[in-house]
Amino acid sequence: MDAYRELESRFARSAAIEDALGILQWDAQTMLPTGSIEGRSDQLAVLRMLSHEIITAPEIGDLIASAREADALSDWQRANLREIERRHIRATAVPKDLLEASTRAATTCQHVWAKARQDNDFATVEPYLAEVMRTQIEVGAVLGSALGLSAYDALLDTFDLGSTQAELDTLFEPLRRDLPDLIATALEAAQAKGQPLQPKGPLPLAAQEKLGRMVLDAIGFDFEHGRLDVSAHPFTGGAFGDVRITTRYDEADFMSGLFGVVHEAGHALYEQGRPSDWRTQPVGESRGMSVHESQSMTFELQAARSAVFFEYLAPLAREVFGGSGPAWSAENLLRRATKVEPGLIRVDADEITYPAHIMLRYELEKGMISGDLPLRDLPGAFREKVKAYLGLDVPDDRRGCLQDIHWYGGAFGYFPTYLVGAMTAAQLFNAARRARADLVPGLAKGDFEPLRSWMRENIHAKGCLLDRADLIVAATGEPLDSRFHRTHLLQRYCT
Amino acid sequence: MDAYRELESRFARSAAIEDALGILQWDAQTMLPTGSIEGRSDQLAVLRMLSHEIITAPEIGDLIASAREADALSDWQRANLREIERRHIRATAVPKDLLEASTRAATTCQHVWAKARQDNDFATVEPYLAEVMRTQIEVGAVLGSALGLSAYDALLDTFDLGSTQAELDTLFEPLRRDLPDLIATALEAAQAKGQPLQPKGPLPLAAQEKLGRMVLDAIGFDFEHGRLDVSAHPFTGGAFGDVRITTRYDEADFMSGLFGVVHEAGHALYEQGRPSDWRTQPVGESRGMSVHESQSMTFELQAARSAVFFEYLAPLAREVFGGSGPAWSAENLLRRATKVEPGLIRVDADEITYPAHIMLRYELEKGMISGDLPLRDLPGAFREKVKAYLGLDVPDDRRGCLQDIHWYGGAFGYFPTYLVGAMTAAQLFNAARRARADLVPGLAKGDFEPLRSWMRENIHAKGCLLDRADLIVAATGEPLDSRFHRTHLLQRYCT
Repeated sequence: MDAYRELESRFARSAAIEDALGILQWDAQTMLPTGSIEGRSDQLAVLRMLSHEIITAPEIGDLIASAREADALSDWQRANLREIERRHIRATAVPKDLLEASTRAATTCQHVWAKARQDNDFATVEPYLAEVMRTQIEVGAVLGSALGLSAYDALLDTFDLGSTQAELDTLFEPLRRDLPDLIATALEAAQAKGQPLQPKGPLPLAAQEKLGRMVLDAIGFDFEHGRLDVSAHPFTGGAFGDVRITTRYDEADFMSGLFGVVHEAGHALYEQGRPSDWRTQPVGESRGMSVHESQSMTFELQAARSAVFFEYLAPLAREVFGGSGPAWSAENLLRRATKVEPGLIRVDADEITYPAHIMLRYELEKGMISGDLPLRDLPGAFREKVKAYLGLDVPDDRRGCLQDIHWYGGAFGYFPTYLVGAMTAAQLFNAARRARADLVPGLAKGDFEPLRSWMRENIHAKGCLLDRADLIVAATGEPLDSRFHRTHLLQRYCT
Repeated sequence: MDAYRELESRFARSAAIEDALGILQWDAQTMLPTGSIEGRSDQLAVLRMLSHEIITAPEIGDLIASAREADALSDWQRANLREIERRHIRATAVPKDLLEASTRAATTCQHVWAKARQDNDFATVEPYLAEVMRTQIEVGAVLGSALGLSAYDALLDTFDLGSTQAELDTLFEPLRRDLPDLIATALEAAQAKGQPLQPKGPLPLAAQEKLGRMVLDAIGFDFEHGRLDVSAHPFTGGAFGDVRITTRYDEADFMSGLFGVVHEAGHALYEQGRPSDWRTQPVGESRGMSVHESQSMTFELQAARSAVFFEYLAPLAREVFGGSGPAWSAENLLRRATKVEPGLIRVDADEITYPAHIMLRYELEKGMISGDLPLRDLPGAFREKVKAYLGLDVPDDRRGCLQDIHWYGGAFGYFPTYLVGAMTAAQLFNAARRARADLVPGLAKGDFEPLRSWMRENIHAKGCLLDRADLIVAATGEPLDSRFHRTHLLQRYCT
């Protein structure tokens, strides 16, 4: 037991550093003076290195071996030891030179990309992207050989433990076939209902924030252990027991800021619901990116962009903004919140066209990593996929393959987690609704207790006790299946 | 040179951790959710330990010895090596057990003190204070034997390098004799002028903040490398190149918040003016607490609470608050800002009675550390000193020896730095005024450039190149002398 305790104590140190990093990163997005970025970069680099040194210390391997021989470990301790070993293997697998080269390539390329996107100039950034890919493929290969995975699977596994190309191909296949038809049907259904009306402002930011805080209270965000602030890009960050979300407000449209808040609140509830007995240990953390996305999407898409929730939201919004008339009816506001409009920009996409953006990026990055898609062909291939999935012409690379930072920052294997998250959300929400008959009626009164409690018990409080696949089975009774997502899209958009 | 470079690189790591600590501590006072203090304490403890481990690493001693043999060091490098060695000696001198015992005693005692002050109950906290003193005296003895100092001198040296009881006794002696008379004369002078009028509000907080930012701009606070926020107790914190000050506003009195801002701006200019070539090294830091206090006091007391500055401030305040009439005249506002009113509470004291509060605490803590003053006699001795210096009866210990946290938190040797700071401020301001004929006329227009430039060149940019005594001589042409402070008090309050 001594070896195990020693590991717990070392990883608790690392967790405290990671929590400090979480606050410093939050501060960088919300509070940092414009000229202070250089010093902050130094602080982050040193703290990251110190945490890395703890996890990669040479004696950790022996401690893990000794700890495994102790048979007195509980289930949670065994799971913790498994997570400790995973981290140690991952952190030691990539040689320092390669880690530095890949970080440098990504940092440089992101920088060049920012200007290239502005200038609509893929050619300039192409060689930098090539270097990012070269180093990422090498990282994937090295990680893969340590984990017994292919290079792309190792990258997928980095963002979402246990994800494989084989699983994703199977999971996405039905949607890949159906999506163009689904979108066409949804567009017809929307046209039949006509354009929704625009609620007249003014929509002062202070009132928008007030409404956001009211909805956060309803959802159960814990302000004694969290904050709401403003940043250019909404995110959830902070530390254990100190979960900080951000949003941005649009004076012309209160729903964009509000649903941003609800989305981050889903992430935040997961963080606030992690098992506190394990707060300093790897097993106490959240179970990967797709499960995290499933939480934000459950609260934002499944629960809040629903007809029943607007029975609660519409009167509240009318009260806060002093709105009246047909534009402020629950039915009209809901139609605005569930508008279907194929577009070129992923981050502006609605719920039903969003999967198309992910699907095409997933297909392209598989080709980029395997070498089937040479980089010089990326812009053209991107256009073809957009045409095929969304029926749209891409007028320039700025709105094509240059629009997202992910690849240029070295994040291959990241995009699919969004779609796995959407599918997971649909399946979890379905199971929660079956388990708690009061869940849907509760939403009409702004009562999120049934949904929150079910998630807390079945997802949040589980931390990393189970792997993702087992977590889904334990929570819903069956493995992840795309049919719940499909049914959800059909019901909401195609009727 | 290799040993020296290695030391620089290790201390740069420690500096990055200390900067991270500065931000996390600022956050704890300004942003932290109420329930998140426990996790923050863990983060701070781990980062402090990591920084301590770097400074106390066993090989540092050999590296210092090797570096000293290299004769190619510049003046700045030699000074840096001296500061590195001082830190290393201090950090290694106190055994881990003693360090932990003294920290624990102080933490516990502070906690008990908070309630004891509320309950006006010295007896309850007395045994805890005894344990704090026991451990502090031991820390002082251990440090003193490493540094060749007495125990109390070692504690003084902790807060203000080079301070000794012998120096302070000499420095304070003239004021100790004169102060009761000075205060009496100042009271007569104030009575002859009559009570100042109270400017009528409202004084909305947003307007107070606006005025504060205008004055900060005039002073030359760099908002690209700093922030202004609100906290319960005003302070200056943050990191190198990211200097964060706070204040608190009083809806009945705009000057309390405003002079809080100016006071912290003095500290902040020092931090923002540190030599950037040495930003990661000990020699690049500020030169101890009394010099730091001298900066806040130069800007707040010497420059801003002066007749000439009110020629600039009064019209600005009238504009911001829409004030008019005799209560808003420069002369009346200045009289409010330089009111003399002996009181029981140190932090509320005016400039001329403040030294009495410090003097009596200095005399009492010398007795506490030497053992001449048994703890059970502290409340009575405190009353006697207040009567002697200020002519006031102390009605209860809450407003007597329980009022300040310092001793209960283990800070013996801290109080005197305030008075050394006031004397240093008077001497520096006098030298700056002689060097820059445009300094005083500039204040009438809100032009702080002459004062700021002189301080930057003579104090801020020097970092720790010189020891405090040499820094004062280099800046003013003579050693620290209390006569400048006395002259200042006479001119401002006794005419």
